[in-house]
Amino acid sequence: MLNFQELLANEETLDPATPNDWDSMRRLGHEMVETMFDLLQNIRSEPVWTKPTDTMKQFLQTPLPVEPQNPYAVFNDFCDHILPFPKGNIHPRFWGWVQGTGTPLGMLADMLASGMNPNNTIGDHSAMYVEQQVLSWCKEMMGFPAEASGILVSGGSMANITAIIVARNAFGEKLARQQGLKALSGQLLMYTSVEAHMCIQKAAEICGLGADAVRKVPVNADYRINLDALKQMLTDDRAAGHLPFCIVANVGTVNTGAIDPLDELLAIARAEGIWLHADGAFGALAKLVPEYSEQLRALEDVDSVAFDLHKWMSMNYEVGCLLIRNAEAHRSAFAVMPNYLLAHERGLAAGPESITNYGMELSRGFKALKVWMSLKEHGIEKYRRIIRQNIAQALYLEDLILTTPELELLAPVPMNIVCYRFCSDHLNLEAVNTLNKEILMRLHEEGIATPSYTLLEGRYAIRMANVNHRSVKEDFDVLVRETVRIGKEILAVASTKGATVMPMV
Amino acid sequence: MLNFQELLANEETLDPATPNDWDSMRRLGHEMVETMFDLLQNIRSEPVWTKPTDTMKQFLQTPLPVEPQNPYAVFNDFCDHILPFPKGNIHPRFWGWVQGTGTPLGMLADMLASGMNPNNTIGDHSAMYVEQQVLSWCKEMMGFPAEASGILVSGGSMANITAIIVARNAFGEKLARQQGLKALSGQLLMYTSVEAHMCIQKAAEICGLGADAVRKVPVNADYRINLDALKQMLTDDRAAGHLPFCIVANVGTVNTGAIDPLDELLAIARAEGIWLHADGAFGALAKLVPEYSEQLRALEDVDSVAFDLHKWMSMNYEVGCLLIRNAEAHRSAFAVMPNYLLAHERGLAAGPESITNYGMELSRGFKALKVWMSLKEHGIEKYRRIIRQNIAQALYLEDLILTTPELELLAPVPMNIVCYRFCSDHLNLEAVNTLNKEILMRLHEEGIATPSYTLLEGRYAIRMANVNHRSVKEDFDVLVRETVRIGKEILAVASTKGATVMPMV
Repeated sequence: MLNFQELLANEETLDPATPNDWDSMRRLGHEMVETMFDLLQNIRSEPVWTKPTDTMKQFLQTPLPVEPQNPYAVFNDFCDHILPFPKGNIHPRFWGWVQGTGTPLGMLADMLASGMNPNNTIGDHSAMYVEQQVLSWCKEMMGFPAEASGILVSGGSMANITAIIVARNAFGEKLARQQGLKALSGQLLMYTSVEAHMCIQKAAEICGLGADAVRKVPVNADYRINLDALKQMLTDDRAAGHLPFCIVANVGTVNTGAIDPLDELLAIARAEGIWLHADGAFGALAKLVPEYSEQLRALEDVDSVAFDLHKWMSMNYEVGCLLIRNAEAHRSAFAVMPNYLLAHERGLAAGPESITNYGMELSRGFKALKVWMSLKEHGIEKYRRIIRQNIAQALYLEDLILTTPELELLAPVPMNIVCYRFCSDHLNLEAVNTLNKEILMRLHEEGIATPSYTLLEGRYAIRMANVNHRSVKEDFDVLVRETVRIGKEILAVASTKGATVMPMV
Repeated sequence: MLNFQELLANEETLDPATPNDWDSMRRLGHEMVETMFDLLQNIRSEPVWTKPTDTMKQFLQTPLPVEPQNPYAVFNDFCDHILPFPKGNIHPRFWGWVQGTGTPLGMLADMLASGMNPNNTIGDHSAMYVEQQVLSWCKEMMGFPAEASGILVSGGSMANITAIIVARNAFGEKLARQQGLKALSGQLLMYTSVEAHMCIQKAAEICGLGADAVRKVPVNADYRINLDALKQMLTDDRAAGHLPFCIVANVGTVNTGAIDPLDELLAIARAEGIWLHADGAFGALAKLVPEYSEQLRALEDVDSVAFDLHKWMSMNYEVGCLLIRNAEAHRSAFAVMPNYLLAHERGLAAGPESITNYGMELSRGFKALKVWMSLKEHGIEKYRRIIRQNIAQALYLEDLILTTPELELLAPVPMNIVCYRFCSDHLNLEAVNTLNKEILMRLHEEGIATPSYTLLEGRYAIRMANVNHRSVKEDFDVLVRETVRIGKEILAVASTKGATVMPMV
C-alpha cells in the first residue's frame, strides 16, 4: 500500500515552483501574445497554406515525454513545427468547407475562459449566467421565444444530433428513452433532401434509427428539396405502417448553399404532426440580412434550429448552438439527477439548473465567454453587415465567373457558396474533373487560396464558401485570375506532353 | 435582391480597423495576461467560492447588444462581473465533483490554439499531426497497442457515449448502423454496477437502447461490482433471449472511487464474447502510480477505455480521451465520405484521415495543443508523482477523519475520494443529513473549501475528490478543522433555539 506520510514530505505542484519561475511563465505569456498578434495582424502577407514538411512530421512522432522541458523550449517547438503549418482559415483567401475566421478578441477570450477553467455544467458561478445570457441572445438572433431552451455545443454536427434525439424522444415519448427503439410499434423515419449534411445520417445511425431511417428526398434544379416527392414519400411510408417523426430542412446546403422552402416544409410538418428541425449551420445566420429575412422568417416557427457561431459569427473554434422551441421536450430527453448532482439551496451546489439536463455532456468548457465578449465588442448590427458583405462578395464572384469565358458556373448562388470550374471544349468529363482537381491542388500548393471542392452531378466543382470577415473584393479577383492562369498552364503543358499529364479527348 | 456592387464599396472586417487599433488590442492582450497571472499566482489567498450577487445576475440579463463596445470596456465588464465569481476549481481547496485544476501553460496553450483557430477534423496541417501524436501518447500512458485507435473529445460523457456506440455497432455489425435497432433479433443489453456514472445510462438512452437496457448490477460493501450477481444476470438474460453486448467496468466510481475487479470482468467478457469498456474518467490515470499498476494492468486488455485529461492530468477544460483497441470497429461505426470531404493527393485537402471518421463531430477545436504542450512541459514522470500525491493526500485525510471523534468515515478510500460526515449521537438520520448538508453549504459560503456531496445508502456524505495539483497537506487539516467547527456551531445554536434550526431527536 501507498505510504502517504512519506510521500507528503515533499509535495509538489504543476505550477511554476518559485516567484522567479512565475515571472518567467508570465513573460512567456506576453511573448505568446506578441507572436500571435504579429501573425494575425500580418496574415494577408502569408501564404494561405504551407505544405507540412517531413521534418515536422518526424518531430511529431516522438514518444511520450518522460522528463520535463522548459516552457520556453516547448513554445519554441510550437513556433518551429506547429505555427508554420496552419489550417489557414484565419487567412483572407481561405474559403474551404465552411470554416470561420475567428477574431483577435475571440482568441483572448479563450485564454480568459481557459484561465478561469470552469467545468460549465453545474453550480452557482458566473460562467453559468454568462451561458444563459448567450443563449438568450441566440434566441433573439433567431426570433425564438424567450421560453424556448437551447444549449451551446461544439458545432453543427453535435447540434443536429442532439436535435434528432430530442425529436425522436418527443415522438416516442417515454418509451424511446426508457425501453428503447425496439419497443416502438414501427420504424421511425425522418426526411431530408439528398443535399443534407452527412451529420443528419450520422444522427440517425448514432441514435439507433439506422441510416435507412433517413429518407433522402430528391431536389429540384436549384438543389432545394422537391416538395411533391416529399409528400409522396410521407404518404407511401405511412401506408406501409412506418412512423414519420421528423423533417430536417436545410438552411444553406453544404454543396451550394441552397435554402429549402421553409414555409412549405412547416405547413407539411404541421399537417403531419411531426417535428421540423432546421439545419442552419451557416445559413440560419442569413436571417439577420434584410434581403433574406422574409425567406427565413419561418425559422422563428420551427421546432428546433442548429447553427454554428464559429462559422458565420466568426467566433473562434469551437462553438455551435441548438435552440429548441419546446423546453420541456428538450429537458425530457436528457435530464438525470444522480445523488452526486443534487441541487442545494445555497453554496456552490446551488445556482441555475444543470446544463447536462439539456445535452450529452457533463464536462463542458467556458465556450460561452468568447461569444459573450464578441457580441459585446461588435454588436449584432456589425455581424449583420459582415454576413451581408460575404453574400455580396459571393455574388461578385458569380458575376466574375459569368463574365470570364474560361470559367463555368456550376450551380445557382443563393447565398455565400459559389461552385465553378475551368472548362475546355477539348476535354471529356473525366478529363475536366481531373483538370479542376489539379487546379485546386495547385491553388493550395502555391499558397494562393483555399477554396474546397465537391461533385455536382458527377462534375468536379471548385467550391468557394465565404464566411470570411477578412476577405475583400480583390481576393476574389485573385481567385478568378489564378484559376484561369493555372488552368491554362496545365493545358499548355498537357498539349506538349500529350496524355501523360491528363487524359485528352 | 442584394445589390452587391453598392455593398462592396465600403467593405469592413471584424479585425481592429487601424494600426492604432491593433496596438490597442495587443496591449489589451498583455493586460489580460497580467490579470490572469495575478489571479493564478495568488489564488491561495482568494476565497474558494464567492456567491454571485444580484447586481451581477442583473447585469447578465441585458438583451442582445446592438452597437459596438470598446474592447477595454468589454474586458472591464468581464473583470467586474465574471472574474469575481469563478467555479473555484483553480483553487487549492476545491474538491467538488471531480474537476481538474488546470495550469498556467495550459491556459496559454488555449490562447495559441484559439489564435491558430483550426477546425481540426480534416486536412493537411499541423494540428492534425499534433492530435495524432497526443493520441499515441495516450496509448502509451494506458499501455494500449500503437495500432489501436482513439479520439479526443470534450470529456468522459462523450468518450463513454462514443464507446457504447462502437460496442453496439460492433455487436450488431452493419445491421445496427444501416437498418437500426429494430432490425436486430433481440434486445441488446449492457451491464454495469449501480455505482456507474449516469452517462452510461445516458449513452443507452441516446443510442436507442433505452435506459432499461442497462442492467444495474449490485455492489459489495466496498462498492465494487458483485461478480456473482453479474454472472447470474447474464445467464438469466441469455435464457430470456436477450442479447448481452457489453460490460462497463468502473475504474473509479464517482461516489467513492471504487475500482471494479478488472481481471475478473475481462475473463467474463471474453467468456461471453462481449465488449468490455472501462469508464476510467479519473481512475484510469492511477495506472501510472506504481501501487496501482497491478490492479489496473488489465486496462491494457480492455476493448475500450475512456478517461479525462482535464481531470487527473490537470489540462484546462475541456479535453477527454477515448481509446479503442479495434481500430476497424471504431472506424466502421462512424466513417462517412461525402462529396465535399473527398481526399485529395496534394494540397490542404490531403493529409491524415478525417477525424470525423472516428466520432460524432465534424467541428472540433485544437484541444490537442494544450495536451501536447503540457505533457512536454512536465513529462509523464511528474504527472505520475502528482497523481500519487493526490492519493496520498486522500489517505492522509482518511487518517485525520478516523482520528477525529466528531467525524465518521462513510466509505472505504480506495483512491482519491473520501466520503465522511460530522456525527452526533443525539440526532436521527434525517437530522444528521440536514446537519451535514448545512455544514457543506457553510464551507462553501465562507469560502473555505468546496468538497461536494453524495448519498451513500441514504446517508448524506461530504465528499472530497482530489485531482488538485495545488492542494497541500495543510489544506486537508483546514477541511477537517472547519467541518468540526461549523458542525459544533450549528449544534450549539440548535440546542439553544430548539427545533427551529434542525430537527432533534
